[in-house]
Amino acid sequence: MTVQENYLIQKYFNSLKNESSAISLGIGDDCAEIKAKDTFLTSVDTSLAGTHFPEDLDPFFIAYRSLVIASSDIYAMGGIPHSFLLSITHPNPTDDWFKKFNSGAQEFINDYKVSIAGGDLTLGPLSISVSFFGNPLPRVLKRSNAQLNDNVYITGKLGAGHQGLLKYRDYESDNQFLRPNVPKGLVEPLNPFINACIDISDGLIIDLERICSASEVGAQIQYDKAFVTEDLEDLIRGDDYQLCFTANNKYHEQIKKISQDIFCIGKIINTNKVSVFDGDQEVNFKTKGWDSFSLKSFL
Amino acid sequence: MTVQENYLIQKYFNSLKNESSAISLGIGDDCAEIKAKDTFLTSVDTSLAGTHFPEDLDPFFIAYRSLVIASSDIYAMGGIPHSFLLSITHPNPTDDWFKKFNSGAQEFINDYKVSIAGGDLTLGPLSISVSFFGNPLPRVLKRSNAQLNDNVYITGKLGAGHQGLLKYRDYESDNQFLRPNVPKGLVEPLNPFINACIDISDGLIIDLERICSASEVGAQIQYDKAFVTEDLEDLIRGDDYQLCFTANNKYHEQIKKISQDIFCIGKIINTNKVSVFDGDQEVNFKTKGWDSFSLKSFL
Repeated sequence: MTVQENYLIQKYFNSLKNESSAISLGIGDDCAEIKAKDTFLTSVDTSLAGTHFPEDLDPFFIAYRSLVIASSDIYAMGGIPHSFLLSITHPNPTDDWFKKFNSGAQEFINDYKVSIAGGDLTLGPLSISVSFFGNPLPRVLKRSNAQLNDNVYITGKLGAGHQGLLKYRDYESDNQFLRPNVPKGLVEPLNPFINACIDISDGLIIDLERICSASEVGAQIQYDKAFVTEDLEDLIRGDDYQLCFTANNKYHEQIKKISQDIFCIGKIINTNKVSVFDGDQEVNFKTKGWDSFSLKSFL
Repeated sequence: MTVQENYLIQKYFNSLKNESSAISLGIGDDCAEIKAKDTFLTSVDTSLAGTHFPEDLDPFFIAYRSLVIASSDIYAMGGIPHSFLLSITHPNPTDDWFKKFNSGAQEFINDYKVSIAGGDLTLGPLSISVSFFGNPLPRVLKRSNAQLNDNVYITGKLGAGHQGLLKYRDYESDNQFLRPNVPKGLVEPLNPFINACIDISDGLIIDLERICSASEVGAQIQYDKAFVTEDLEDLIRGDDYQLCFTANNKYHEQIKKISQDIFCIGKIINTNKVSVFDGDQEVNFKTKGWDSFSLKSFL
């Protein structure tokens, strides 16, 4: 059977029920037209089968997870995502696969109140590339704005994504590999207080190093079992999609009031590295975090 | 050697010299921030090695061609492209490959006066996915706006892309597979006159059918050797990236004055198909155009 790109896009992308009013012209033309006020935020994220998700993952969660991950970059910049372009490469697209993928995309659209703007479909190795668009909140949160003596915070426990990966085949509803727990409700209330921000996709240490490098500062983390799921290694495990941010200590009480899940984990200091202490002992990690170039082998 | 995503992106994407002022915040953060006035146009296009370009194509032209093709959708909607996100999947990224790719991207940026907004890099089968952004001209050109009795035009000869593919290994400077001849100078002057528009990527017949289907009309094409490079088959060969558009006959003289390369090739009529006549003989094509799902085998 020759499956036509047009047929599948018409049938499955067009039928998605959009939740955002940002799109003035959607699927069906050469381009989408999207509303924007002065500026828009955008970022692209590609999820490849065998690298970013297991080959045998239910297409429902291939959709849900790829879309959440791509939206996470908008939150990390202090933005509210509203729409996305979806580029699918698939070796053998079938109605059955698209039906499941479509359900996952629809659940994501409902959960995050966003819209699909368009997409394309190509025959090839399974890969989902998502370009996300969002409106900036009053303060756009750059990596380069961490200030000396800022506190370092995370928006939730680390390691839940990795735990979810280990048990993804059980498809439990609270699995955070399948449904990453992006702290979308915290982004707006936290916006006035944050200096620098990043989402923890590759691991806390490597991602915090990106803030430190862009801001020309260092950081010292005080490890505490309270902010990990499993153990110290959760600091270098990726797939969490919590935010790591820095803020002046004078906002500490206001920040803690926003959510009990927020942990203050350390300080921005005047060095050129990120160091981690377990008690008064400095910890040495073998790697700093997940690297798509050292192709992780899945279960 | 472990090649780091960050190293390559920093070294090769960051060094690109941008030509558009649309970007307020570029590479180096979780998102780019891009200026927009009321709305922006956007579209995604994925070029896969072995499907959209030959595996052994010089990386300079992998970049140049993929970027031109992606920008073409913006022109086809009546827009001026200004920036793009670039997502590269590569099985074995090396400095040598990126150096060449970077040169091709830079030449495209210079030729089209655009900017790179950001991108990502993943280890996997070679594929270039480009999301393009542009400003709409006064009239956004939808496929669905063709009117009965409109003339059908193309902005240049068909078939040059296919001829270029046959000889791509000679790398001649006028090869239109390597450097597709997008009619970027015609988009603004033509904008007031066009009713419906599409870029000819998959072949004239299939792309004109998309206009007809969206507009609920038909079209009759009168074949003429003057508007093809080789023969009648050029009407179903893709890779041209000329525009096909419809306009009221009252603008015919004004349209012809804009460029000598523009051909009037037929009429919008009250049927539900696109028919082609060679003299008074109706032509039957075996296929309607190029379909990425019937994986073309390259030379």
